[in-house]
Amino acid sequence: MKAQVIRTFGDPDVFKIEDIPKPEIEPGHLLIKVHASSVNQVDCKIRRGEAPSIAPEFPAVLHSDVAGTVEEVGEGVKDFQVGDEVYGCAGGMRGCEGGALAEYLLADAHLIAKKPKSLSFGEAAALPLVTLTSWIALFSKGSLTTNMNILIHGGLGGVGHIAVQLAKWKGAKIYTTVGSDASFDQVRELGADFVINYKSQNVGEYVARFTETKGFDFVFDTVGGKNLDNSFEAAALNGRVATTQARSMHDLTPLHQKGLSFHVVFMLIPLIYGVERKGHGEILTKAADLVDQGKLKPLLCEEQFSLDQVSAAHALMESGKARGKIILNY
Amino acid sequence: MKAQVIRTFGDPDVFKIEDIPKPEIEPGHLLIKVHASSVNQVDCKIRRGEAPSIAPEFPAVLHSDVAGTVEEVGEGVKDFQVGDEVYGCAGGMRGCEGGALAEYLLADAHLIAKKPKSLSFGEAAALPLVTLTSWIALFSKGSLTTNMNILIHGGLGGVGHIAVQLAKWKGAKIYTTVGSDASFDQVRELGADFVINYKSQNVGEYVARFTETKGFDFVFDTVGGKNLDNSFEAAALNGRVATTQARSMHDLTPLHQKGLSFHVVFMLIPLIYGVERKGHGEILTKAADLVDQGKLKPLLCEEQFSLDQVSAAHALMESGKARGKIILNY
Repeated sequence: MKAQVIRTFGDPDVFKIEDIPKPEIEPGHLLIKVHASSVNQVDCKIRRGEAPSIAPEFPAVLHSDVAGTVEEVGEGVKDFQVGDEVYGCAGGMRGCEGGALAEYLLADAHLIAKKPKSLSFGEAAALPLVTLTSWIALFSKGSLTTNMNILIHGGLGGVGHIAVQLAKWKGAKIYTTVGSDASFDQVRELGADFVINYKSQNVGEYVARFTETKGFDFVFDTVGGKNLDNSFEAAALNGRVATTQARSMHDLTPLHQKGLSFHVVFMLIPLIYGVERKGHGEILTKAADLVDQGKLKPLLCEEQFSLDQVSAAHALMESGKARGKIILNY
Repeated sequence: MKAQVIRTFGDPDVFKIEDIPKPEIEPGHLLIKVHASSVNQVDCKIRRGEAPSIAPEFPAVLHSDVAGTVEEVGEGVKDFQVGDEVYGCAGGMRGCEGGALAEYLLADAHLIAKKPKSLSFGEAAALPLVTLTSWIALFSKGSLTTNMNILIHGGLGGVGHIAVQLAKWKGAKIYTTVGSDASFDQVRELGADFVINYKSQNVGEYVARFTETKGFDFVFDTVGGKNLDNSFEAAALNGRVATTQARSMHDLTPLHQKGLSFHVVFMLIPLIYGVERKGHGEILTKAADLVDQGKLKPLLCEEQFSLDQVSAAHALMESGKARGKIILNY
């Protein structure tokens, strides 16, 4: 089968189209004919060699997000049939059988769900990683409830734009940061109640303005680094902070003074270590229902790519100029 | 009324017996005739001037833990009557009306519960702060469930010995650290399934020995500082770490790599800021039931004190030589 393969870490042009063996079905797995994938930051990071501990071995097929059709069903798998249209986050790193940048992907059935009926394969492939990340942060770990006020950093980002919609569905009051006044309308359409331009207001200012200095019940940080300190500062007494980025040194005193709960989401753990995978398929099943009810949709980058154009897709991702998820249709 | 008062921060001998006005009853409050108090680390810290932001204003009456008899019931208070025997953590710092080192304490009724029937006032006064801290860490924030394995640091400490008993009641499998082999039997009697001498085994060793290198589902750190890094190291993938001490700089990378949830417990928040106080009375009511069912008991220091001897009680606390809670009977 045709696949985009890397045999060394490097720039976006490190991908080479190769003909590699089509995977054989295994018990508990699905063989998926891949119709689409999407680019996530972690794919670029792995390609650049910045995450060697989770990178698949060379020759490597990257990409986790996948949408496609079930070609073969492994022994013991009960919930899927040949021909089912499915989506998931199920490859491209250590612990997985292959990657989505290929004609076929062998995937643990626990990581897969039926795709939303109302979406194309490309649209569906934009969802899994960012939806799982948001769901785990807001619900599985953070236990967001109706009527909480939540500050979501980066409300138009890959994770952020899904988090805004999920928090809206849950009935929370949503505050979100963006980097430009021109983005206010777009993020309001997703469900944000109040929008903050973080370039023109500091934490103290928007906490005073929106919460009477009490802080937010829940802060979802999708940025990390210095912004994590901003998130601790913005949280209320006994509040919650969730993040997708916690690899830096921090003074924990604000967490102590406020009695905070701090949830770090590393949604790749089930893929890498083979634990708790069933939860991913279950979340994606619920998310597909929300999509078909019109409550969740991906923001897509206008420019779309084919499997042959993955180098260009990665280059666009790394340029920082893309707005919305970058998808590849095969 | 008679009270131990401080008019400046200082050594244990800074306390002076004074005659101060008996507090007048207020709506929503109870006037408690104090029969006993206990010493907590935070009382010593406030007395030394190391926590000025939460210290009451001078002249100050310290101590939070109290057990006594209801003398007067404020307007609007429905759950208490004159003569009720009660206990709570309800004074000794900014945001509270007085302190327990006096003949009478005016306390917000939300912070108070009926005392366990099976305990003396002195025994009951040993419980509130450490029981609230453990309960909030294990249940309110940490959501400990049956069959989780939990590592409790300092299983004979003020907070630790209560946490061991509460975790046992919940049905968790309990591992705990102590600093001496001579303490193994005592902490096993409280409910610990496995005891670790942290002076003779490092984290890697006991994680390998007891969890096949998987780590613990829940780690309750009651020590802070460098031990917090040990706690992150000892936690399992997607595990939970709770602590009572988080005022230092830490590399958060282990939290990221494992997807940890980290709960910081600062149980004084309701006292200081006047928020969420009702939860404290509710927890103490449940704890009193557990005590009367024989499932929870305080470890007491053999040496006990009177109100006149508070300086000696603080000196003993600061010597680090006391085993069990130090109580004062009036």
